[in-house]
Amino acid sequence: MKVNVVKNVLRANDIVAQENRSVFKDKGVLALNLISSPGSGKTTLLEKTLPVLSPDKSIVLVGDLETTRDAERVAPHALNATQINTGLSCHLYANQIAQSLSALPLDDAQYLFIENVGNMVCPGEFDLGENLKIILLSVPEGDDKVAKYPTIFRVADLILLTKCELLDILPFDVQRVKEDLAKLNSNTTLLPFSSFKGDGMDVWIDWLKQKRQESIGAQAKFVTE
Amino acid sequence: MKVNVVKNVLRANDIVAQENRSVFKDKGVLALNLISSPGSGKTTLLEKTLPVLSPDKSIVLVGDLETTRDAERVAPHALNATQINTGLSCHLYANQIAQSLSALPLDDAQYLFIENVGNMVCPGEFDLGENLKIILLSVPEGDDKVAKYPTIFRVADLILLTKCELLDILPFDVQRVKEDLAKLNSNTTLLPFSSFKGDGMDVWIDWLKQKRQESIGAQAKFVTE
Repeated sequence: MKVNVVKNVLRANDIVAQENRSVFKDKGVLALNLISSPGSGKTTLLEKTLPVLSPDKSIVLVGDLETTRDAERVAPHALNATQINTGLSCHLYANQIAQSLSALPLDDAQYLFIENVGNMVCPGEFDLGENLKIILLSVPEGDDKVAKYPTIFRVADLILLTKCELLDILPFDVQRVKEDLAKLNSNTTLLPFSSFKGDGMDVWIDWLKQKRQESIGAQAKFVTE
Repeated sequence: MKVNVVKNVLRANDIVAQENRSVFKDKGVLALNLISSPGSGKTTLLEKTLPVLSPDKSIVLVGDLETTRDAERVAPHALNATQINTGLSCHLYANQIAQSLSALPLDDAQYLFIENVGNMVCPGEFDLGENLKIILLSVPEGDDKVAKYPTIFRVADLILLTKCELLDILPFDVQRVKEDLAKLNSNTTLLPFSSFKGDGMDVWIDWLKQKRQESIGAQAKFVTE
């Protein structure tokens, strides 16, 4: 009984996620789902990324149980920043994204960043309609997390190893992370990153721009067929 | 429909949790539910605590999606260490604890530590039958987490501010945490703690011993009534 209910919830979520994906495609918006533990640096990443990438072309949707703190932090750098409070839910659902879309200036946007609730498990199971999933793993969390939380690492399009300025002072074996990743997901990249010092920022910005170009190219091809 | 299913799941969980609590009471075991984000230091805390507290009187149940790494780490310091793999679930259920109890040497134990899946949300909603909930908040996660993840901080009996040796090098306002906590939960204590340097260890060990004495006293009183 319970398994069936969970399957139905996931199926309903996937239907709405596909509708969201169609909207993003129509609007030429690259949608990115940012997933990590609490405190891995998702909001700080956005504060540093948006001014460099495209401040007046980026929309941010932020999921949190309570408070509007994170949306307030990124708002000065974004075309629009909207907080979605999830109450008791440990992840965002596709319908929460769908309900937000009508109020967003998608015609003027190139990027939509969705900052998920801080959680290394369930956000990996619920498609929001994004084009790509970005996982943040911070150095203080330790080098054993990939094998212990495989759900999100299996679906990662890119993994940012955040707070990498702490690699000098905390025990962390990057090779162990790479080996665990190789067993789970051969289609992802691990990028050492520091919002504090700027390591990895150029590669990250180029990656985003390239992925948007690929997305627009795919869209144009689709329209002409 | 979904709300009713969730309520039924929680109600069923609570019934089993009460049965677990009765077992712990009968056996004179103090059961502690350790809750935190991934990488806040739950396993390291146990590695440091058990040898000081009572290595041959402590049982550990460890919840993780996959791997047996954490149980292997604490096993040398415990009377028994058992891993519970939760698959896709982001928290332990009371029935997973109940199913483990028959194989555990509870007659010889004084303490049962339950290391929950690393997650700041759902473990706060699912009673396992524990006597007390211990929340770990690590300094690298940031000083804004109490208000953003109120579910677990509302139910905390004790909060360990772990990795407090990093207070010297990372921005973290302890006063902000205290103020956010004061709004949520007046029955908890915030204890700065360092498994690396030993800060807070004496207070933590004394707290555990005192809570077990209170638990046994309450049990004795119950028996004579």
